[in-house]
Amino acid sequence: MINHKRIGCEKLRAKVMSAEEAVSTFIASGNTIGMSGFTGSGYPKAVPLALAAKIEAEHAAGNPFRVSVWTGASTGPELDGALARANGVEFRLPYNSDPIARDKINRGEMNYFDMHLSQVAPVAWQGFLGPLDVAVIEIVGIHEDGSLIPSSSVGNNKTWLDRASRIILEVNSWQNPALEGMHDIYYGTALPPNRVPIPLIRADDRIGQTTFRCDPEKVVAVIETDSPDRNLPFTPPDEVAKRIANHLLDFFAHEVKRGRLPENLLPLQSGVGNIANAVLSGLLDGPFENMTAYTEVIQDGMLDLLDCGKLRMASATAFSLSPDAAVALNANMERYRDKMILRPQEISNHPEVIRRLGCLAMNGLIEADIYGNVNSTHVMGSRIQNGIGGSGDFARNAYVSIFVTPSTAKGGKISAIVPQVSHVDHINQDVQVIVTEHGLADLRGLSPKQKAAVIIENCAHPDFRPALADYFRRAKEHSYGLHSPSLLDEALSWHQRFVKTGTMHDTGA
Amino acid sequence: MINHKRIGCEKLRAKVMSAEEAVSTFIASGNTIGMSGFTGSGYPKAVPLALAAKIEAEHAAGNPFRVSVWTGASTGPELDGALARANGVEFRLPYNSDPIARDKINRGEMNYFDMHLSQVAPVAWQGFLGPLDVAVIEIVGIHEDGSLIPSSSVGNNKTWLDRASRIILEVNSWQNPALEGMHDIYYGTALPPNRVPIPLIRADDRIGQTTFRCDPEKVVAVIETDSPDRNLPFTPPDEVAKRIANHLLDFFAHEVKRGRLPENLLPLQSGVGNIANAVLSGLLDGPFENMTAYTEVIQDGMLDLLDCGKLRMASATAFSLSPDAAVALNANMERYRDKMILRPQEISNHPEVIRRLGCLAMNGLIEADIYGNVNSTHVMGSRIQNGIGGSGDFARNAYVSIFVTPSTAKGGKISAIVPQVSHVDHINQDVQVIVTEHGLADLRGLSPKQKAAVIIENCAHPDFRPALADYFRRAKEHSYGLHSPSLLDEALSWHQRFVKTGTMHDTGA
Repeated sequence: MINHKRIGCEKLRAKVMSAEEAVSTFIASGNTIGMSGFTGSGYPKAVPLALAAKIEAEHAAGNPFRVSVWTGASTGPELDGALARANGVEFRLPYNSDPIARDKINRGEMNYFDMHLSQVAPVAWQGFLGPLDVAVIEIVGIHEDGSLIPSSSVGNNKTWLDRASRIILEVNSWQNPALEGMHDIYYGTALPPNRVPIPLIRADDRIGQTTFRCDPEKVVAVIETDSPDRNLPFTPPDEVAKRIANHLLDFFAHEVKRGRLPENLLPLQSGVGNIANAVLSGLLDGPFENMTAYTEVIQDGMLDLLDCGKLRMASATAFSLSPDAAVALNANMERYRDKMILRPQEISNHPEVIRRLGCLAMNGLIEADIYGNVNSTHVMGSRIQNGIGGSGDFARNAYVSIFVTPSTAKGGKISAIVPQVSHVDHINQDVQVIVTEHGLADLRGLSPKQKAAVIIENCAHPDFRPALADYFRRAKEHSYGLHSPSLLDEALSWHQRFVKTGTMHDTGA
Repeated sequence: MINHKRIGCEKLRAKVMSAEEAVSTFIASGNTIGMSGFTGSGYPKAVPLALAAKIEAEHAAGNPFRVSVWTGASTGPELDGALARANGVEFRLPYNSDPIARDKINRGEMNYFDMHLSQVAPVAWQGFLGPLDVAVIEIVGIHEDGSLIPSSSVGNNKTWLDRASRIILEVNSWQNPALEGMHDIYYGTALPPNRVPIPLIRADDRIGQTTFRCDPEKVVAVIETDSPDRNLPFTPPDEVAKRIANHLLDFFAHEVKRGRLPENLLPLQSGVGNIANAVLSGLLDGPFENMTAYTEVIQDGMLDLLDCGKLRMASATAFSLSPDAAVALNANMERYRDKMILRPQEISNHPEVIRRLGCLAMNGLIEADIYGNVNSTHVMGSRIQNGIGGSGDFARNAYVSIFVTPSTAKGGKISAIVPQVSHVDHINQDVQVIVTEHGLADLRGLSPKQKAAVIIENCAHPDFRPALADYFRRAKEHSYGLHSPSLLDEALSWHQRFVKTGTMHDTGA
């Protein structure tokens, strides 16, 4: 039954067992578990489900059983969804987008810390998070010498394998063995005072090895799986997304014309989602050739750009593909292998590298205020949506930090531009361009009041523009200070109104 | 009259003139001027005063005359104070601490953009700020080949000299010529796609040259001056500052004991001010030997640490010394020259280098909220105090990012810990430790609600602690979401109360 091709190391073949057996033997309540997974790619499919079942059984028997879970970023429903449903997660980092887990967090039933994704591995090494008991890592295969072929995401796997006391491997036969060779696992990181420069100066530089090293003595179980990654399909770009993309393409063309960007632009970083994908689609018809991407995840739009040759190569830490695109990639892996590099997220998101390369960072937001501060995480200031993820790594260090968003949400009831954001993830100094379907605000080199004028005029939805202009005008008359004028009594009133009435519009209610 | 020792280049001796002549010949209304200066060190003393006089005369004659001013950071009263008083500044970046300029900004009469100090030079090269018409740079002397000996601050001088259309030099004989050799001017920066790793791996590495290159053809005027740098005296540490320092020293000792910091710590970064100086004084009596500093400015406390040998070397971009300490340094420059390095601020504050070295960052704040978000700049959300300066460069990239503050201000009427900060400069992810005289909150690896509990308990002043605890308790009951619970109606109420009544205490008024 054991797949000798996938498990080339004899010593580890002896450790093949069921997920249920691995869980009941090697995972205890109170453990901290480092799992693979970054978006819906490369996360373990069997052990988390078995763990959730075990937790539910223990709870039914009246026994407490909870664990702490560290990952790369978000994962699939078989991991975050299953464990959250079982009420099995005591503490979660660094990112979650699972709806069941989100609900637990926002009901105050689960502790969660959303972190800069570049900092997870270094922080784990620093030691104050405590020991890592178990690593559960999906891989594509095991070599004779025990080294591991990474799967469709790299994330923090290198660090979990090095730090964990015991290791559980999931060998997923669904993943194409031709993935081997695409990864670039850099083993040159260290804690200070022993850190040295990351020797990466082009997005397509390879600085590491194609496999994870792994101490076979630490491997306690090997599970065989054959399960697809689960990502959501992208919706085709709608009119709003297309307009946002067009404004952004005009901006790039303008910057090239002014000599402020090279003709092939600079390495692209793009957040996950439909708007980001629309921008990538827009580049298909744009004038820019020979582009590169240095980003977190490779989305459908990037595959299309690679196919048509406009994108020369893409560096990321994971795939984040629709089911159709994942199948297409899996069927043609050899063709893509030289055009893609998957790296540990401490490298894909490393501030040193992002600043050196000069990425053009494009990220989404929940809301921005008239001074250009951005909230990416907290709906109405208190309810977490997903997390800051890598947006801070990129926004602060980008050559141009761009945020894209429809001007309204919830059918026009929420304005994406507000007098004051209810939570800040990106300070105005890290927000250089804001784009909505109504226009683009180039905030570079402007004072706060100059920014407010251009954001209200160019980005706000016409239904909210007069109220924003009125707020700004009155703030300039009555504010305590006039550097970033604000009316403390009204700054959060749009959010208060939404919570009370279901809309940010002042209906006189 | 011309000092041949200081002005070794014959060609430039011919360009010696008065500041008044230089201003009337080479500076026009609407110009953008890049000046030297970082804290009260190394700023031009004659040209700004002559420019202010010229502006006042033009204004008296009914003629408009304003300029844009870029510097390293804050400067002296002869620069920011004089130009602001003359109402001569249209736009100012990247940092100001002058009270007259601050007042103009907060009255809405002067546009100001406070920037990450590491990003000023790259942004100037990016080109969207427009051309730099004039550089006005204080130096210690000119070599025969036209190269320049830097003064007591480096700041952005390299960039202004390279970017400006015309250059005015102030040769200040007050500065000790023995400063020569202390500087390390790195010419390896570039715009992407041509950036390479900064080859600095220890705080005491030298990677550049000791002088500025300068095209003599661009020099239009040389002014001779003999004026001291102006910095404010430090007050001796009071009881509050000493307690803060003690909490921090205990923390360092604890981290060393746990093996999470080396015995000689990691390179220290310290903001400017009395609390920071108290911490440095505390290190005088502490157990840590062979320390280094990688910071923005060298303050009195660092000189003392160098004198006693506990600090092996200090890297910065400027001095920020009390008048007494400046005189003492000037008299003993040879002794300090091998223990200090002054670099361009794009290197002293470079995120790449700060993260590599793993600095222990210690900065002040105006207020922090219960979730650990920090406001460093805006009093009551709208009135700028100074600016973000380099605090963002250090806080986000530090090994441990520490913020220190007395728990109250204005004689106890303002709490430094509030339900929600009125402006955010440092997001909670970048704030790992907060220290007040009442205690230290170690926020590493905690979820928002865990952070709130420890900040309220350890850091808040006892007079405000019950109100904060009450807010937090009620927020956990009534908040829209329970990840970072907040009461939108009350989140900024402490600030509203202060503006209306002069105190954050609820006196029932």
